[in-house]
Amino acid sequence: MQPVPSPYLVAFDGSFRLAAAETAPPSDRPDRSLLKARLRDLNDVLADQQRVLYADNRYSVLLVFQAMDAAGKDGTIRRVLRGVNPAGCQVFSFKQPSAEELDHDFLWRVAKRLPERGRIGVFNRSHYEEVLVVRVHPEYLEAQNLPVEDPGSAAFWNRRLEAIERWERHLAETGTVVLKFFLNVSHAEQKERFLARLDEPEKNWKFSVGDVRERGHWDDYMGAYEAALAATSRPWAPWYAIPADDKHYMRVAVSEIVTSTLAGLPISYPTVDDAERARFDEMRGLLEAES
Amino acid sequence: MQPVPSPYLVAFDGSFRLAAAETAPPSDRPDRSLLKARLRDLNDVLADQQRVLYADNRYSVLLVFQAMDAAGKDGTIRRVLRGVNPAGCQVFSFKQPSAEELDHDFLWRVAKRLPERGRIGVFNRSHYEEVLVVRVHPEYLEAQNLPVEDPGSAAFWNRRLEAIERWERHLAETGTVVLKFFLNVSHAEQKERFLARLDEPEKNWKFSVGDVRERGHWDDYMGAYEAALAATSRPWAPWYAIPADDKHYMRVAVSEIVTSTLAGLPISYPTVDDAERARFDEMRGLLEAES
Repeated sequence: MQPVPSPYLVAFDGSFRLAAAETAPPSDRPDRSLLKARLRDLNDVLADQQRVLYADNRYSVLLVFQAMDAAGKDGTIRRVLRGVNPAGCQVFSFKQPSAEELDHDFLWRVAKRLPERGRIGVFNRSHYEEVLVVRVHPEYLEAQNLPVEDPGSAAFWNRRLEAIERWERHLAETGTVVLKFFLNVSHAEQKERFLARLDEPEKNWKFSVGDVRERGHWDDYMGAYEAALAATSRPWAPWYAIPADDKHYMRVAVSEIVTSTLAGLPISYPTVDDAERARFDEMRGLLEAES
Repeated sequence: MQPVPSPYLVAFDGSFRLAAAETAPPSDRPDRSLLKARLRDLNDVLADQQRVLYADNRYSVLLVFQAMDAAGKDGTIRRVLRGVNPAGCQVFSFKQPSAEELDHDFLWRVAKRLPERGRIGVFNRSHYEEVLVVRVHPEYLEAQNLPVEDPGSAAFWNRRLEAIERWERHLAETGTVVLKFFLNVSHAEQKERFLARLDEPEKNWKFSVGDVRERGHWDDYMGAYEAALAATSRPWAPWYAIPADDKHYMRVAVSEIVTSTLAGLPISYPTVDDAERARFDEMRGLLEAES
């Protein structure tokens, strides 16, 4: 299955440059009320698609979300999935790895959280943290007790990226539709959102002092994102770098890509074969014969 | 916390009799359009409550659904949770236990699926299957390799029910709000729904021949349900036996109980103390000092 076309699709040939990726929405975007209405329509489409996915029970869908703090991951996940049956959908937010998780390879904990067949799984952060935050803070590698001689070297990160690329290829080949979204917020917009979290009491609980500290590593993060997206955007597991400075536009852009991808998936309600039909008739007879 | 009052609350003193529990909705229930509108309102209430639950991050909520086939578990879960942020909500459908699960105590696999703090977890079927389907088919106990001398005896089932009661008490004491719903469908209504699944092609995939076989054990199931509900409805983990012959009424009844329970929970958005406020001011200064 080829990825759906989009101006935000990250090239598969490693040529991606983050500096050329937009953080602002197009100037001719629809106004907010139209975007909200469009998102509602797409919510209904996805809810229907998920029911077929579930009944078909051959594919699963994995949506990976990565972004800098305050780019809008939580809100996007919530609004893109609005209306989807929660029984057919599972969201995992990956935080700092536990001691047990650190004692396994870096894909172990995410592999355990993959969606079952027929479901939509969402990773709020993911295995990519291992080539993003850990790359920016290579001292985190110490806790991983890796039996390699070059932890933190360029070759080391390239091997990790290749491992991710191979693993996602395996997932795709075995029935998982992998879609990855980088919510691309600008440095200036992140500042505005942090200030809002500090100023508005009801947003205070979302703020952590560590967020501002990480902002100090902005350029390192951008370098890590560029390397990760360039190395792992592939036809079987594409990245989309979505402008995130306008949340309404971003949500619709993500939702369009998810629903267009699912529309291209060969799924349908299972049909009943002749043998099963005969058993059904027998069952109907039994039911109707009840006094 | 005392359970919210309801005509469907199962008594805590073991006096529950299933024969006295209604399967039909009250004759003076609101009409369908009013019920649907009421459910939409309750969806909004629950969505708001879930955000506070998540921000508060001290309690979790566990909703257990048990019922005979075609009583409407799937549809009720979907519609009661409609609008809730999928990141704060997780639904598990328990099927036949795996070999690994059978090699553990009967609460192990459900314990692994308990909701995290701040989340709403839903069990579509649950540990109660161990005193329902297994009680109706005691031959399933053979695969459990239990080191007891009286498997399948009355004393054996009572010990299981007591184990469940104690475990749920522990959950409640450690911050899990446990609410259990028996969707009480009549024998006659189940027949109609099975026939609809056989007759309507788009419902065929929901039908399994095993469902009609299990219907043949109706009275045994009713006995097992009555024993389970009587033995495990407690103030810290109440059962509600909801009339299920009218799906619209049932969904509203469940939703009213869930939202009323959460309304009584002492949760709120976290507030920021003086020390944290001082750190916030420092962070604001750093952000504003950026060139």
